[in-house]
Amino acid sequence: MSYFDAASSAPLHPVARQALLASLDEGWADPSRLYREGRRARMLLDAAREAAAGEVGCRPDELVFTSSGTRAVHSGLAGALAGRRRAGRHLLVSAVEHSSVLHAAEVHERDGGSFTEVGVERSGAVRPAAYREALRPDTALAALQSANHEVGTEQPVAEVAEVCAEAGVPLFVDAAQSLLFGPVPGSWSLLAASAHKWGGPAGVGLLVVRKGTRFAPPGPADERESGRAAGFENLPAIVAAAASLRAARAEARAEAERLRGLTARIRERVAALVEDCEVVGDPAHRLPHLVTFSCLYVDGETVLHALDREGFSVSSGSSCTSSTLTPSHVLRAMGVLSEGNVRVSLPLHTPQEEVERFLRVLPGVVSGVRERLGAPATPVTASAGTAATPQPADLVVDAVGRRCPIPVIELAKVIGEVPVGATITVLADDEAARLDIPAWCEMRDQEYVGEKPAERGTAYRVRRRG
Amino acid sequence: MSYFDAASSAPLHPVARQALLASLDEGWADPSRLYREGRRARMLLDAAREAAAGEVGCRPDELVFTSSGTRAVHSGLAGALAGRRRAGRHLLVSAVEHSSVLHAAEVHERDGGSFTEVGVERSGAVRPAAYREALRPDTALAALQSANHEVGTEQPVAEVAEVCAEAGVPLFVDAAQSLLFGPVPGSWSLLAASAHKWGGPAGVGLLVVRKGTRFAPPGPADERESGRAAGFENLPAIVAAAASLRAARAEARAEAERLRGLTARIRERVAALVEDCEVVGDPAHRLPHLVTFSCLYVDGETVLHALDREGFSVSSGSSCTSSTLTPSHVLRAMGVLSEGNVRVSLPLHTPQEEVERFLRVLPGVVSGVRERLGAPATPVTASAGTAATPQPADLVVDAVGRRCPIPVIELAKVIGEVPVGATITVLADDEAARLDIPAWCEMRDQEYVGEKPAERGTAYRVRRRG
Repeated sequence: MSYFDAASSAPLHPVARQALLASLDEGWADPSRLYREGRRARMLLDAAREAAAGEVGCRPDELVFTSSGTRAVHSGLAGALAGRRRAGRHLLVSAVEHSSVLHAAEVHERDGGSFTEVGVERSGAVRPAAYREALRPDTALAALQSANHEVGTEQPVAEVAEVCAEAGVPLFVDAAQSLLFGPVPGSWSLLAASAHKWGGPAGVGLLVVRKGTRFAPPGPADERESGRAAGFENLPAIVAAAASLRAARAEARAEAERLRGLTARIRERVAALVEDCEVVGDPAHRLPHLVTFSCLYVDGETVLHALDREGFSVSSGSSCTSSTLTPSHVLRAMGVLSEGNVRVSLPLHTPQEEVERFLRVLPGVVSGVRERLGAPATPVTASAGTAATPQPADLVVDAVGRRCPIPVIELAKVIGEVPVGATITVLADDEAARLDIPAWCEMRDQEYVGEKPAERGTAYRVRRRG
Repeated sequence: MSYFDAASSAPLHPVARQALLASLDEGWADPSRLYREGRRARMLLDAAREAAAGEVGCRPDELVFTSSGTRAVHSGLAGALAGRRRAGRHLLVSAVEHSSVLHAAEVHERDGGSFTEVGVERSGAVRPAAYREALRPDTALAALQSANHEVGTEQPVAEVAEVCAEAGVPLFVDAAQSLLFGPVPGSWSLLAASAHKWGGPAGVGLLVVRKGTRFAPPGPADERESGRAAGFENLPAIVAAAASLRAARAEARAEAERLRGLTARIRERVAALVEDCEVVGDPAHRLPHLVTFSCLYVDGETVLHALDREGFSVSSGSSCTSSTLTPSHVLRAMGVLSEGNVRVSLPLHTPQEEVERFLRVLPGVVSGVRERLGAPATPVTASAGTAATPQPADLVVDAVGRRCPIPVIELAKVIGEVPVGATITVLADDEAARLDIPAWCEMRDQEYVGEKPAERGTAYRVRRRG
């Protein structure tokens, strides 16, 4: 039983558990009340705020506790945008932000504002220059994650904060994925994080607003948490969150290099052990515990279930595993393969043996799924047969109504049947095809000609190179 | 050590504690994930939803868990208003709703909507006819609490729901104060509640939206909780909330009559033991565990501190105890005295002996505060002296800059010095005077003439009757 999905939610840290239990009896009263139970609750709250601020590297009065990381993101963005309304209503975000940031940007646009998505490199990283170019005179706020939640790539936050500061624009940092491993460097203005990502309990987020940052809390007025987080304080959970951040940080400092070694080993071995597999994300500037790869000719959901049966809990950005049937916007923005996507994120103290067992199990899992789906067993080469039998110059493959990875499998099956220079047109209506057919061409060194709307679905054209 | 502030927050119920502990190890994973830890979390979440829905009296798919009662109120009102936007943008609320409802109404108005506050009787109850009269063709939504949080008066929810239904307007019910004691009757459309009020943990609210009610979730899109409550589910707390609602309900059924007897005894004895004291709220249609009274010539904060020293934790709606320095909007809407206000709300299983000790301690606490403030010891009567010595016909008392209860004390001190028929003008700039001077006149059977702006503060005129 190996839980390899720490980036979704980390198991509760023992210190969080202890602190939660200890404060259940002391921390249930209303900290805004004047009587002893209230004063005791207030003291616990103040101590938790100081501890959390110490780990973030901010002043206690700059930090409030929200009811989740999502809430911290929503309130932080809305409050900063409202506070800077006079400067303008334009918001800059990277294309690979967490969905909570992107959905907040959509609401901002719906309410009359505007936003620009800054694109990323194939590694998943933004270029500071791209932020500089995207800044406008009416830009009220820029947002950038500290590290990507799907592929682990670290973002140049300090550099982007500098670019923004030069333009007088505050930078909001979603630090949910990296806060466990250390404070966010640079002169950012706002920061959000989520306790259950570092082993704290659910129900607690952090929102930091640096002194001097204009901020107008969104939503109905509420006196609690400096007016920035409405609702009765979830005190035992807040105490547990602060205590576990400190404890888990100390362990993460010791663990980071070991975890980095384990994920480096997965990066290296997966590419060697599994044919037609692409490891994605920046190989150097990355979170220590996270590695992501995609495998041709398999679907993420089946791989997830097969790994689950083998005792491994992992996550996937493949379209087939989400309810919306669209592939991960992160993989799309990076321009990498989304099919058969697997994200491994190791909790602190993951034994090396579990990683080794994963590497032993994975090749069989992938080849089993490929076999069931009838995927081509070996990479396509210009076989002798293709020259011997007469072939149509061009081919149309109809994969309408078929889900990922079938359109790519059908393409791969026939690429050897057309002459070099001829084209194959894949008709497909699965959104993942738009990402995966070009990605397949890149991996297979075939020419991707382009797409156009067809009577049924979309027509993707590929020209055989070799 | 008697905690008499259950209406603010109830101590954690033992069942909540057990359920929280049990689910800490099982319920930390993401319930939307496909692997075993996620599926286990999903099962816990589904079971909690069914249990809570059973207690509320709704279908499980009508109920979502929010991060607090405040959040349930904010989201419920905003979602129902947005869902009915085509019908209009007018909102009806009672004047004695919880501040979370009133603040949401203010935001609705700021955003271009409008709202009407429906007044209440001196008992704190609304009249269904008043809702009928206030309904407009463009009314999108009406809101009414099930019972008042400051004075315990139960509202005629079923009748108001009927009035609203006739007009095709959904009714939103804030059931935070009453859900412990039973389901809310009638054909309401939306309901909000808060777990820490029934002995559940902080960090959990309920939002119920009946089938057929138009609802458009506010804020950025989020897949969790049917799109009605953004953020990672606080699963252990949700499990604890549902389990404790069921357990506390069963106990509350057995406890209600005993608590009602205890609060009836406080109502009766306080009026007899403490001079110049007004018990407020409906004597019959009220919550079993809550009683509120106000005492002339004392300030709530000092009484609270004195009671705290005696081991009693109570709450107050007096202006001097809040950071805003305005008296409770509930007491103001009822037109009752706000000074020296004390709310007693008994947790389940409060021993009678604690109530008796409270009644023994209270008179001394109040008279001690009155003595320190120099309040008149006995009610004013037309003394012989006033006729014997020449007196000015009218008198001006300058209490500008003095806080509640000083303006009323100064008034009471001099009322005996003017002839019957003469007036006293009190100059004051404390907001509480606006409520407390008329309330004092009513209690003392003196004539309240009215108020008008003065050069410094406001001039309140009182005519001596007897």
